[in-house]
Amino acid sequence: MRSAKAKVLHEVAGLPLVAHAVSAARHAQSDSVCVVVGRDAEPVRRLVTRLDPSIRCYVQVERLGTAHAVLSARDAIADGWDDILVLFGDTPLVSSTTLARARQALADGASVCVVGFRTPRPTGYGRLIMSGDELLAIREEKDASDTERAIQLCNAGVMAIAGPQALELLDAVDAQNAKGEFYLTDVVAIAKARGLSVKVTESPFEDVLGVNTRAELATVEAIWQDRKRRELMLAGVTLVAPQTVFLSHDTLIEPDVVVEPNVVFGPGARVASGAVIHAFSHIEGTAIEAGASIGPFARLRPGTSVGQDAKVGNFVETKSVEIGRGAKVSHLTYLGDASIGADTNIGAGTITCNYDGFNKYRTVVGSGAFIGSNASLVAPVRIGNGAYVASGSVVTEDVPDDALALGRARQVTKEGRGRLINERNAARKASKT
Amino acid sequence: MRSAKAKVLHEVAGLPLVAHAVSAARHAQSDSVCVVVGRDAEPVRRLVTRLDPSIRCYVQVERLGTAHAVLSARDAIADGWDDILVLFGDTPLVSSTTLARARQALADGASVCVVGFRTPRPTGYGRLIMSGDELLAIREEKDASDTERAIQLCNAGVMAIAGPQALELLDAVDAQNAKGEFYLTDVVAIAKARGLSVKVTESPFEDVLGVNTRAELATVEAIWQDRKRRELMLAGVTLVAPQTVFLSHDTLIEPDVVVEPNVVFGPGARVASGAVIHAFSHIEGTAIEAGASIGPFARLRPGTSVGQDAKVGNFVETKSVEIGRGAKVSHLTYLGDASIGADTNIGAGTITCNYDGFNKYRTVVGSGAFIGSNASLVAPVRIGNGAYVASGSVVTEDVPDDALALGRARQVTKEGRGRLINERNAARKASKT
Amino acid sequence: MRSAKAKVLHEVAGLPLVAHAVSAARHAQSDSVCVVVGRDAEPVRRLVTRLDPSIRCYVQVERLGTAHAVLSARDAIADGWDDILVLFGDTPLVSSTTLARARQALADGASVCVVGFRTPRPTGYGRLIMSGDELLAIREEKDASDTERAIQLCNAGVMAIAGPQALELLDAVDAQNAKGEFYLTDVVAIAKARGLSVKVTESPFEDVLGVNTRAELATVEAIWQDRKRRELMLAGVTLVAPQTVFLSHDTLIEPDVVVEPNVVFGPGARVASGAVIHAFSHIEGTAIEAGASIGPFARLRPGTSVGQDAKVGNFVETKSVEIGRGAKVSHLTYLGDASIGADTNIGAGTITCNYDGFNKYRTVVGSGAFIGSNASLVAPVRIGNGAYVASGSVVTEDVPDDALALGRARQVTKEGRGRLINERNAARKASKT
Repeated sequence: MRSAKAKVLHEVAGLPLVAHAVSAARHAQSDSVCVVVGRDAEPVRRLVTRLDPSIRCYVQVERLGTAHAVLSARDAIADGWDDILVLFGDTPLVSSTTLARARQALADGASVCVVGFRTPRPTGYGRLIMSGDELLAIREEKDASDTERAIQLCNAGVMAIAGPQALELLDAVDAQNAKGEFYLTDVVAIAKARGLSVKVTESPFEDVLGVNTRAELATVEAIWQDRKRRELMLAGVTLVAPQTVFLSHDTLIEPDVVVEPNVVFGPGARVASGAVIHAFSHIEGTAIEAGASIGPFARLRPGTSVGQDAKVGNFVETKSVEIGRGAKVSHLTYLGDASIGADTNIGAGTITCNYDGFNKYRTVVGSGAFIGSNASLVAPVRIGNGAYVASGSVVTEDVPDDALALGRARQVTKEGRGRLINERNAARKASKT
Repeated sequence: MRSAKAKVLHEVAGLPLVAHAVSAARHAQSDSVCVVVGRDAEPVRRLVTRLDPSIRCYVQVERLGTAHAVLSARDAIADGWDDILVLFGDTPLVSSTTLARARQALADGASVCVVGFRTPRPTGYGRLIMSGDELLAIREEKDASDTERAIQLCNAGVMAIAGPQALELLDAVDAQNAKGEFYLTDVVAIAKARGLSVKVTESPFEDVLGVNTRAELATVEAIWQDRKRRELMLAGVTLVAPQTVFLSHDTLIEPDVVVEPNVVFGPGARVASGAVIHAFSHIEGTAIEAGASIGPFARLRPGTSVGQDAKVGNFVETKSVEIGRGAKVSHLTYLGDASIGADTNIGAGTITCNYDGFNKYRTVVGSGAFIGSNASLVAPVRIGNGAYVASGSVVTEDVPDDALALGRARQVTKEGRGRLINERNAARKASKT
Repeated sequence: MRSAKAKVLHEVAGLPLVAHAVSAARHAQSDSVCVVVGRDAEPVRRLVTRLDPSIRCYVQVERLGTAHAVLSARDAIADGWDDILVLFGDTPLVSSTTLARARQALADGASVCVVGFRTPRPTGYGRLIMSGDELLAIREEKDASDTERAIQLCNAGVMAIAGPQALELLDAVDAQNAKGEFYLTDVVAIAKARGLSVKVTESPFEDVLGVNTRAELATVEAIWQDRKRRELMLAGVTLVAPQTVFLSHDTLIEPDVVVEPNVVFGPGARVASGAVIHAFSHIEGTAIEAGASIGPFARLRPGTSVGQDAKVGNFVETKSVEIGRGAKVSHLTYLGDASIGADTNIGAGTITCNYDGFNKYRTVVGSGAFIGSNASLVAPVRIGNGAYVASGSVVTEDVPDDALALGRARQVTKEGRGRLINERNAARKASKT
């Protein structure tokens, strides 16, 4: 990855790779999830613990191969008689359906079940040597005969091992190979040598793609996005140009929402039916109610809620704001740490001055109020229901219900002075050149 | 479609599907266009009537099949001896060339002409059973023999029927089938049984794609966009990244316009030769003259005209504004209900305050004027030619030609007070934590 | 191209086509580069001279074919014994590796080396008639036999000619053909007739694509972009959605930079490791230091530098600005001709008023300063370290270190007047309708 960051912390759909693997394990009804991390992977451990404090993390102190990695979690394996699923942190698209099938194979009597995939270009992958529906061995590229190299069924890495045999099989793996590593794949031959059943369950190739470069990261992201887009469209969401809409792992969009081209959903977005998301919008941590209109060029940041039939227009940024039903924030506005009442109109260029360099303060605007254009609302400040703020005002004190606030200088007009200024400025320019 | 909205009201290229079909019929020189709508399709009827009041709408009260739908327009068919073209409201890409060929087949003596398409994957489509260049029958998937299933020439749904036989053939269709529906496709066998000629005209598969899901809607939109982009490029328009430029059904762009990546054209956009549309622009209902420069990040709304060599820059929104030749509106500005004279400069952050919560008012700025940054122009207001508005002013009264207007407070500077404020704010922060 | 502009001035990756060819020639270690332009191509000559004053331009007065074009640079060819590479101005993707191989063929004894490419659809291209590894002739489509037409190895146009024979071979080309033109390709047969060796070096098809329409221009641009994106990803740059990131010929991005979807890099952008470029950003002529955060919706124009860990947020435009380490310019701001000190906070809606319609002036803000929201800084102006500007102020005079500046009117609040205004406005509206 050519990165200072651990590989499994790179993100797909706004979620680290390892969290995708954890989520797949969870969706496959795993009772407990363990994560084995390398010795320098403290940030991975922190992330995993934050995701779910019930996950146990084990450190693989030396890097002695995949079986060794799994055995780093020996305590968890020895815990009981539960079947084991071994996933990889860099394979985020593996489906819970596939995992469920691997589990089922164990329930049906197999001791091991390997997830395989078919590809017309198997070069480089371990081939699955089958006899009927029994897996005899996983053959690495370099050890494969010509006949074996022609096999297009390959090892995806994911493996299920029956609880009663798991520790015994893993402990039987040795490091008698060129690299001196303990390979998880050896479990297959060991199980077969003991007369146990080893099965294969097939997965689509795309689902088991691993990530080793940023280009592969982008490929996996693209597959994830395409699936999610398609799922939304089939559920009744209009994506005018699906390739230009970017979704997060937790994006929720109801039917009969229209999403125009070039929209980015960060984590935590929810859009109710009948809302329209116009082009060039960027939305995260935001709940958008039915019939609301967003953008174009809106940026909704975490803590925003947009009420029913409300409007957030172009070049508007919101953060920690509740925008009431039917309220309008149409242009060139920054609303931070605020609440805006129902049917209130926020004029173009309005700014909530919520920050003094150290602290943040709230602005509360009532319902049916009118904030004139280019107003500065200096928080903490409260503007009442039905109140009216004149354009260009700086509001530093509370405005009662139905009151008018002005905070601007009176206009002075000087005849002929515009011409003089222009002449002076032109002269300066001429003298420079 | 999983939609509360009638399918044919969903849009491609900013135009409802049914309007595409109407347009195709018009382009095929149809003298009169009728639309048959379902009984709950009042919004469709309204749309169609708005599109063209001369279109007659007929309601199909019961849904008894495609022939029954066509016969809902019995009056129109009985009207005269004109040939009939039957189109579907959910097939927006059908070309007028194909329709013209179908018409020509009738002129050449056929009583019926069916539009067909070829596909290597015909499963699910009705197959066209040919004998030489005569169409014998349209065989539905479920009724087809193995030999017939191998046929790759399929029924597109579109049909032309000769005026003199139309009513008679349609009336001969019965509902003796599993679903008890009157199928338009039965017209073929009926005509053949009467010794009439039935021909086929082929269309590219893409042209006759129907829309049944949002995913298909997106596919059809993508095809439409690709065609329009290619047409523009071959006519001399530079699209730096064609896949990222979204056009509307009526977008007009002259040669030697450059369109950068990520530009969305809504309906009603016209761009003259030599203009440049920079990235991330959103343009609708706007005329842009030669040599003008738009964006990046410009949003031009309906009623905007941008004069020759004028400039509209980033984070600028316009609505119902005429911007004069050579004028510059470069940054962070909202212009609504305004006219800006030639060679006038509008400073960054300028806002026309055109709305009081109830009414909209106009702002008129003369030519050669200079509006300083962050000015608020409170409409209705008129600013003369060559006038100068000082930065940060709120302008509430007219400014004569060549005058200077100021509407801002004088600066007060308090030595050392910045430090005190910072210390106080820091202390507040500390006390909170 | 259907263009008023010379074809080779159209751009790929922000660089004119002819500049790509010049760059390829340079990268192939050419000692001197000559450009032959048509007689009406003064803009091409100007561009080329601006690119590199050492390039000699020759004018081909009459358009008498490709060999004639090359001989327009007769002086350069006659200059010495150096080998010649003939490139075309409309083939921007030709690789220096291919050119190096062509050169090497001459070093190995060939008198001519032609660059060829393979395509399964050779129709229209000149076919390379080989005998072993010797090229016998280049056969144009119209002169080719059926057997020759089946040949899939075609002429890419690029040719290397050994210095000692170059002038003699070129002078031997005659115009005895239908069009009466001197064809460069005839050099092959002439050389063979004289018993000289002519070799072929193959290039990928994509590398030798020529540009004759805007559609082909877009295709070449897309190939260029894909290569550059891939190169960056493999070097450790995260492109979340590579297809939506547009790079320029000179874009430099270090490893461990994250670039979100929909980012456009114009010429002159440099991004240091650890920076994040959020969605919808537009960056040109800008240096971004480590750990900085840009966008979403930022527009950085030439002359911008963003210091380490600094932030430029949404709807912010910068031009000729140094932004100090850790400074924050988060929202709706225009900074032009300015410098912002370390750790200074620029509030939302701040505008530097740098232009008076004729001249531009500088704004200098010290470190640790706080500029309140919606402030207008009227340049030339200097704001000291640790100074504090109140929200909504217009600053026209320098502010000393640690001072507070206010330039805003005091708020006046009129009880009940908001209601009256609203009633009056509502009444006006009612009277209109």
